[in-house]
Amino acid sequence: MGTIVIKFGGTSVATTEKIQHVAKRIIDLKNSGKNVVVVVSAMGKTTDHLLQLAGEITETPAKREMDMLLTTGEQVTISLLSMALIEKGVPAVSLTGWQAGIITESVHSNARILDIKTNRLDELLQEGKVVVAAGFQGITESGEITTLGRGGSDTTAVAIAAALNAEKCLICTDVTGVFTSDPRYVEGARKLSAISYDEMLELANLGAGVLHPRAVEFAKNYNVSLEVRSSTENEDGTVIEEEVSMENNLVVRGVAFEKDITRLTIFGLSNQLTGLSSVFTVLAENHIDVDIIIQSQTDTNTTNLSFSIKNKDRKEAVNVLESQKETIGFEHIEYEAGLAKVSIVGAGMVSNPGVAAQMFNILAEKNIQIKMVSTSEIKVSAVIEEDKMEEAANILHDEFKLSVGQEVR
Amino acid sequence: MGTIVIKFGGTSVATTEKIQHVAKRIIDLKNSGKNVVVVVSAMGKTTDHLLQLAGEITETPAKREMDMLLTTGEQVTISLLSMALIEKGVPAVSLTGWQAGIITESVHSNARILDIKTNRLDELLQEGKVVVAAGFQGITESGEITTLGRGGSDTTAVAIAAALNAEKCLICTDVTGVFTSDPRYVEGARKLSAISYDEMLELANLGAGVLHPRAVEFAKNYNVSLEVRSSTENEDGTVIEEEVSMENNLVVRGVAFEKDITRLTIFGLSNQLTGLSSVFTVLAENHIDVDIIIQSQTDTNTTNLSFSIKNKDRKEAVNVLESQKETIGFEHIEYEAGLAKVSIVGAGMVSNPGVAAQMFNILAEKNIQIKMVSTSEIKVSAVIEEDKMEEAANILHDEFKLSVGQEVR
Repeated sequence: MGTIVIKFGGTSVATTEKIQHVAKRIIDLKNSGKNVVVVVSAMGKTTDHLLQLAGEITETPAKREMDMLLTTGEQVTISLLSMALIEKGVPAVSLTGWQAGIITESVHSNARILDIKTNRLDELLQEGKVVVAAGFQGITESGEITTLGRGGSDTTAVAIAAALNAEKCLICTDVTGVFTSDPRYVEGARKLSAISYDEMLELANLGAGVLHPRAVEFAKNYNVSLEVRSSTENEDGTVIEEEVSMENNLVVRGVAFEKDITRLTIFGLSNQLTGLSSVFTVLAENHIDVDIIIQSQTDTNTTNLSFSIKNKDRKEAVNVLESQKETIGFEHIEYEAGLAKVSIVGAGMVSNPGVAAQMFNILAEKNIQIKMVSTSEIKVSAVIEEDKMEEAANILHDEFKLSVGQEVR
Repeated sequence: MGTIVIKFGGTSVATTEKIQHVAKRIIDLKNSGKNVVVVVSAMGKTTDHLLQLAGEITETPAKREMDMLLTTGEQVTISLLSMALIEKGVPAVSLTGWQAGIITESVHSNARILDIKTNRLDELLQEGKVVVAAGFQGITESGEITTLGRGGSDTTAVAIAAALNAEKCLICTDVTGVFTSDPRYVEGARKLSAISYDEMLELANLGAGVLHPRAVEFAKNYNVSLEVRSSTENEDGTVIEEEVSMENNLVVRGVAFEKDITRLTIFGLSNQLTGLSSVFTVLAENHIDVDIIIQSQTDTNTTNLSFSIKNKDRKEAVNVLESQKETIGFEHIEYEAGLAKVSIVGAGMVSNPGVAAQMFNILAEKNIQIKMVSTSEIKVSAVIEEDKMEEAANILHDEFKLSVGQEVR
């Protein structure tokens, strides 16, 4: 019997009424003759409420204790959903992260999954039970409760699907699929019927917000068939798979954008071989994500190094770098906040070398200054001023013919 | 270094402000040179809120899933209290029931503790950490989350104290100690400085409500020195210990009472040897607590059997007995609800045989009808009409000279 892993996010289980609705969808799936593992997040406002409680205690809560606190959120959802299923006559068993065998590394608030010990899952599925597992959470080898960070429930779902060799992993969310861009900001943004892992990965990394990048990476690595679809509407979503041929006449598949970016520049960085690596080692050790990196030679002994980070990490990034100033060897640090990143993504770019130039031209034409650039085989990103972000996204969406009615199929 | 286990109930940790206050008390205790293990319950209204959510899903929630749901309550408290301690510079580590090694039997909603695996507790105390453990919850050998039932946090505290061979187990609550009777109902009720395990056990079993009977039993069996004291006031509480000599001139130490009692009578119970045991086996299997039992011979072949249970168990008790009517062999069942139990407790009764008679006399004198009676070496209980309960308690409290100013010390 095939196994389906189906994930519902916080909005889909925000009230007991919505949980009842989710239970019905699960029962339909179960009745279609599948083994079903459900992965759920905390109910809507629960996490906010817990964060508020922690905030009343201290401004700097210990990360271990935050994990202890936040993981209660999903535990509430799994028990309520299991009650709803049992009430409707479907045998269901809830499992916390540790009960589901989700082993993570020993990092609090942002741990990665190392392994899934599936014996308990296997056993329960074999007994015909619907398993309702808590997303977002895991346990270290030494028995500490950890969380996977933002969007962690997606990762839990994909990892379980991979471990169980599931037929499919359905990510049910409050949108009906993956769009060419965010419809709230970009006029004419439309749903894609399919997209490749790599494209989705770029879109996810670029802040499209539908799927956590770690989840997509996991899916790609283990070749898990993913589908993003609505948690309420019964329409086809977007399939994420290895090769997407249907729409390959589209060079660009999506436009992504992301606010709250800071460009940090280290002036007079020592030109020794270790300079660059020591900067990013320090940042990595402090779990600060660095995105675009640009190095420019100034004289023979030093370079200037610019990179983009999240606004929220700026203070800590500056602190940890300053504290290692002697070891790393640099003159001073400057930063510019209030930036945004706009990106175009598409597997077709590989064979269409003019795409980046087309992007830069249209932005220049519309007087939008580009402050940093980064490219990959299937993506071009530009860092611009935050208040130009929405305009730029619409311009690019239109330029690359992504709007409703423009699609050639 | 001596170890103190200190327990705070739900009212004492009802708000983040109260949690901050509790943190200060713990720090004082830690600074007095003790190893400290704190056991806490769910914050004030948390359990009610969780029960409400479950109630919105189903009227008959699966017990396993209720345990999954309710145990999030203490998990929130342990993390917040640990954050508060860490913030104030005291190294603290929260542990859920399973992390603290609280092994229970495989019963949901009312499990008993079988064992405490102390290796993790020992390790953390050795490192100088304050351990903040979740009360009320445990884990079965097969990894299922269980709860200990009402007052379970007291039991957790005493069990940990026993397992760690602690100096003392402090139960901090919203009263300042154990009283001769409930001051809300009985005029002149006053705090006892000490009481024996057995007396406390009778009082706890009889609904005095300060300490869970299971906790007292545990304390007695493992000779754990217990003290009930206020969670806010800094005054001496009531010490519960093996022998209490200070007040042994008092024959009766306390008056306890309890509402919501039903008397159930089985008429025409088969007089076979197995009749009686089969009745109580069926009830025990369904976790229905039976208190007072009275058997009366009617003819040579059958007897009538009366026993008292909680009102809330009446429906289930009747159902399970009726369903086994053929096997057990009886004619019919009747019941009387709306009853109460009033009891006098005191170790001195053993050498004062007239105490029970004195109790019956004074109640008869005041026109209070006794419907059932039960006695032990240190207790006499009478089941009466519920609306006479308060009056009877006051009469007995006065009769046995327990009121303020009457104590001889």
